[in-house]
Amino acid sequence: MVVVMQEGATEAQTEAVIRRLVEMGFTVHRSTGVRHTVLGGVGPMDDFDPVALEVMDGVKEAHRIVSPYKLASRHFRPGGTTVRIGNVEIGGHKLVAMAGPCSVETEEQIEASAEIVASAGAQVIRGGAFKPRSSPYSFQGLGEKGLRILRAAASRNGLLVVSEVMDQVQIPLLTEYADILQVGARNMQNFNLLRELGNLRKPILLKRGIAATIEELLLSAEYILSGGNYQVILCERGIRTFETSTRNTMDIAAIPVLRRLTHLPVIADPSHGTGKRDYVVPMARAAVAAGADGLLVEVHPDPDHAFSDGAQTLSPDQFTDMMEQVRAIAAAVGRAA
Amino acid sequence: MVVVMQEGATEAQTEAVIRRLVEMGFTVHRSTGVRHTVLGGVGPMDDFDPVALEVMDGVKEAHRIVSPYKLASRHFRPGGTTVRIGNVEIGGHKLVAMAGPCSVETEEQIEASAEIVASAGAQVIRGGAFKPRSSPYSFQGLGEKGLRILRAAASRNGLLVVSEVMDQVQIPLLTEYADILQVGARNMQNFNLLRELGNLRKPILLKRGIAATIEELLLSAEYILSGGNYQVILCERGIRTFETSTRNTMDIAAIPVLRRLTHLPVIADPSHGTGKRDYVVPMARAAVAAGADGLLVEVHPDPDHAFSDGAQTLSPDQFTDMMEQVRAIAAAVGRAA
Amino acid sequence: MVVVMQEGATEAQTEAVIRRLVEMGFTVHRSTGVRHTVLGGVGPMDDFDPVALEVMDGVKEAHRIVSPYKLASRHFRPGGTTVRIGNVEIGGHKLVAMAGPCSVETEEQIEASAEIVASAGAQVIRGGAFKPRSSPYSFQGLGEKGLRILRAAASRNGLLVVSEVMDQVQIPLLTEYADILQVGARNMQNFNLLRELGNLRKPILLKRGIAATIEELLLSAEYILSGGNYQVILCERGIRTFETSTRNTMDIAAIPVLRRLTHLPVIADPSHGTGKRDYVVPMARAAVAAGADGLLVEVHPDPDHAFSDGAQTLSPDQFTDMMEQVRAIAAAVGRAA
Amino acid sequence: MVVVMQEGATEAQTEAVIRRLVEMGFTVHRSTGVRHTVLGGVGPMDDFDPVALEVMDGVKEAHRIVSPYKLASRHFRPGGTTVRIGNVEIGGHKLVAMAGPCSVETEEQIEASAEIVASAGAQVIRGGAFKPRSSPYSFQGLGEKGLRILRAAASRNGLLVVSEVMDQVQIPLLTEYADILQVGARNMQNFNLLRELGNLRKPILLKRGIAATIEELLLSAEYILSGGNYQVILCERGIRTFETSTRNTMDIAAIPVLRRLTHLPVIADPSHGTGKRDYVVPMARAAVAAGADGLLVEVHPDPDHAFSDGAQTLSPDQFTDMMEQVRAIAAAVGRAA
Repeated sequence: MVVVMQEGATEAQTEAVIRRLVEMGFTVHRSTGVRHTVLGGVGPMDDFDPVALEVMDGVKEAHRIVSPYKLASRHFRPGGTTVRIGNVEIGGHKLVAMAGPCSVETEEQIEASAEIVASAGAQVIRGGAFKPRSSPYSFQGLGEKGLRILRAAASRNGLLVVSEVMDQVQIPLLTEYADILQVGARNMQNFNLLRELGNLRKPILLKRGIAATIEELLLSAEYILSGGNYQVILCERGIRTFETSTRNTMDIAAIPVLRRLTHLPVIADPSHGTGKRDYVVPMARAAVAAGADGLLVEVHPDPDHAFSDGAQTLSPDQFTDMMEQVRAIAAAVGRAA
Repeated sequence: MVVVMQEGATEAQTEAVIRRLVEMGFTVHRSTGVRHTVLGGVGPMDDFDPVALEVMDGVKEAHRIVSPYKLASRHFRPGGTTVRIGNVEIGGHKLVAMAGPCSVETEEQIEASAEIVASAGAQVIRGGAFKPRSSPYSFQGLGEKGLRILRAAASRNGLLVVSEVMDQVQIPLLTEYADILQVGARNMQNFNLLRELGNLRKPILLKRGIAATIEELLLSAEYILSGGNYQVILCERGIRTFETSTRNTMDIAAIPVLRRLTHLPVIADPSHGTGKRDYVVPMARAAVAAGADGLLVEVHPDPDHAFSDGAQTLSPDQFTDMMEQVRAIAAAVGRAA
Repeated sequence: MVVVMQEGATEAQTEAVIRRLVEMGFTVHRSTGVRHTVLGGVGPMDDFDPVALEVMDGVKEAHRIVSPYKLASRHFRPGGTTVRIGNVEIGGHKLVAMAGPCSVETEEQIEASAEIVASAGAQVIRGGAFKPRSSPYSFQGLGEKGLRILRAAASRNGLLVVSEVMDQVQIPLLTEYADILQVGARNMQNFNLLRELGNLRKPILLKRGIAATIEELLLSAEYILSGGNYQVILCERGIRTFETSTRNTMDIAAIPVLRRLTHLPVIADPSHGTGKRDYVVPMARAAVAAGADGLLVEVHPDPDHAFSDGAQTLSPDQFTDMMEQVRAIAAAVGRAA
Repeated sequence: MVVVMQEGATEAQTEAVIRRLVEMGFTVHRSTGVRHTVLGGVGPMDDFDPVALEVMDGVKEAHRIVSPYKLASRHFRPGGTTVRIGNVEIGGHKLVAMAGPCSVETEEQIEASAEIVASAGAQVIRGGAFKPRSSPYSFQGLGEKGLRILRAAASRNGLLVVSEVMDQVQIPLLTEYADILQVGARNMQNFNLLRELGNLRKPILLKRGIAATIEELLLSAEYILSGGNYQVILCERGIRTFETSTRNTMDIAAIPVLRRLTHLPVIADPSHGTGKRDYVVPMARAAVAAGADGLLVEVHPDPDHAFSDGAQTLSPDQFTDMMEQVRAIAAAVGRAA
């Protein structure tokens, strides 16, 4: 903790802050300058809120000097983490592609999707059985039936399954059918859910919330890691800004920032990141060029008749084309795809 | 649905859009101008995503013309909704004040808080028994024990209880101890939770998410209303912007906007809205001046030693002073407090 | 400057940072903790960019400990600044109201506006002669003719004039006709303009840019103050966020934050802050309740036929009503209006 | 113009809107649905503000159906614009690289920079002679002397010059020394400056403001184009969001969005886009992968001692490496660099 006293702060004010820090278990170093006194507090309370000091009389500002996350930090595993499922590696040399429709709709739709996904060279099929929808009147998903359809099609086509868990109650069901449990952007700070997922020994795909800072994303990952589940994959999928040409603003820079701050693999979702299919392919290229370990993309045999998110869903041809373009970019950055 | 075709869109493109709309159940009116053709679609599919039309060839833009929420709209109950609990009315002539510590910590702390809250003239005590914390290493709440403490102190002091429900699993517990169940900002789009709350017949305090638009807040209210639970109170508590002087940017204008769009009562939380106790009182005044039906504020017998959110928590004297100031503002806008 | 070294930073890295700080003229205090070394640098370079240290090897983070503005800080004039023009005081006990149409259109329109403004009890008439318009095809203002019209109507009605200066070239003209020169939101960081205004001895109304932090607003004020012109009035007029129900999101909390950080008077513009006339009155009340020293509001004899900004412009009756409501709020916060 | 009437709007209200539209010169088509009446207005007033209709009684919403910009739209020149200066083409098959220090400091620094820039294969040297700085106490640039130094070094090394014009007063000077005049982000809506630049016949590099939408960027370009100057190059350089890990959030998706909406070339500035040199190279790759026509990058012979923006400035080796990596990405997307 570093506390900077205001110009003209009194000795009594400075001492009150020192007493407060000592009371909290910090060892305090004091530096007196011409205009400001600076207090450096070294101690065990890493999650202490610096604003609690900033509201004390005479305090100008306070900063925490230790990251509030530990297990998620790059320092914890400098070599990086690779999540292995069967012979698929996420975070290794080869990029991973996860693709499929927004929602599981019918057996035929999923079988067709699985064939497209597998034949274009992707490793994982995605598809929602439980759908978080802004409107209560929108299609809410097929539930367990959807998971069964997805699993069957994946197995027939040699694919892994990623699907969203919306709630701790759904964990057993998802664990039964999916290889990777996805936490959606709206649930990134559903801490009860995160804690339960920390008790699993299954890979978790954690999507960044639309208003979450990178630090908050890593704190949410820390919830899972602190339960002993180290198989966490992060996903950048766009944040909310004032720009409305795209559904969200994809924060591509989050990819190199996360690479520096954490050892966890990072993938990108240009479908939710842009919301319009015309922009998915260029943004998939950009994400890989910036260093992403993989992509999560929506593809549907007939996107214009998808039950949800059709506008951002690629057609089979567009998806196949995307995979080719991504392979060229991967090669240009020294990776395989 | 209104679809505007691009300048130079072909007849075939326009007809494809018309076919699509008709297929979706819309009746289509066509207006041909000098530069643009405009299609007006009237139909039953209120939640149809206009972006799905915008990605069709030749389409310039598409707009939905019906609000995606119905039960939450002002049109549904032009006279407004008053939530009544015992002899407390929320949304009536008299403002309601809900106050108390961020977290339930000890019996003594809650008893002291209840006395402060009641003697300053507030009607509801708040206090979290389950705490959503960004860091897994922060204090997570006392759970049921906390609720029991809160209920006992409230009853002794003639107060109602509002407390946060983080998860559908916690609903039975909260229902037992609290008069109003609070849905926190992070759970505003936890749709499974909202749906379950719609099945209750208990007042729900729904806080706006930090990245939620006003429309999304009303859609989340719609989830609860569509289950038959009409006792929903909305709460503005700040949104996330680029400004860092305050924890969030309180969107005071949301208060008159909501008054226009919905019949539901609207309260404001200047504690979370600002994050610093020095700004709580002026923002409480501003919220009431803008037309809020009440306030939700953090107060603690000893805020500097609060387990959580101390920086934004008022001391007993500050709270009493706030209540007086708010009463003056309430009178100035023709209300009681 | 406070520099926090990374966990595991080498002695050589720490010494390189110390050398860099000393080279920049800082005196360095070193605190070594269990996990982190903290360097406190005290020195004369207040505008040194801390990011330049953050990119050095082994550095975790760096913070500036001195505000980059001095003359604008509350510390410089703890008692606050009152801008006096004739017998109008801005920043004193009595609120000031500045009102008038967005653009000067015709002599009749301005004469009618001046009568409305004066008879409702406002002190200053506003009106743009040079209009910054997003589109080159929109009405761009009457120029000098507009200023002449405005001045004449103001004098006949005992009002002061505030009008926007878009460019340093326009300064002489504005100085001739206006009592207060307004710097619009888009020009808040037009540093050449600010510097020239610092050489005047005339009051400047400086509006916050839609993406400007409060610190940046104060730095822009510092440009004017550092030229010796101390008559600066700040204006909160909304920032750009993701919310689209209102044209901008009015940051009402900026009012108490500025009151704490600076001695300069602060007024609020609910017309640009909301963009819709229905929300102007409640937001005017909120701004005064939060502590604003005055208001800047758009009013027009016939707002539906205004050349610009009609949607956010009050009718004469609405304006008179607003003035009455604001007077009630002013009284409730212990001020006159 | 499309106007949607509220459910339950009266015939009188609908007729008032129709009268208003007709008065404005629109031809009106009326569609009456079960719940809503929709009015389609076709007319000449492309810059009419739809909000002026939204505030009328009974109106639910109003939308403009014509882009407010014309000359900047892709429709105006479907084949795209190439800006040619000598044998450099911006917007052609080959990417263009513009690089150099933030500020012109000394002759030696610029000569060294020019050699680095030229030998790594870039075509244009950048360098500021007039510096817009947030603080009045920061280095403000060498002025004309700086331009002379820049021009001389460029000529000796076969490079073009791009430099910022902060003000219409500086246009003659910049025109004399620079090949491309840069409009900085803070001046993107300095309409007087834009209008004057429209009268030149010199290439203009127009940077997006940190809070500017893509539509506003195109409207600012329209100011220049409408004066007859068609040599406009757009530049994405990051927008302001809540994320603080990077100085700005680079909106990489703006690149494909602009490619669709406009015929003008688009380049990207990853130095200002990220603010930290470690992220410049991955973001340069991402921008090119997304389809940018070129890059604007800061490089300095000794970035740690740069007078400004050192933290985001590449060293000579980093720049050379970046150029190589960018060439690989360019090849992967079918372009030369």
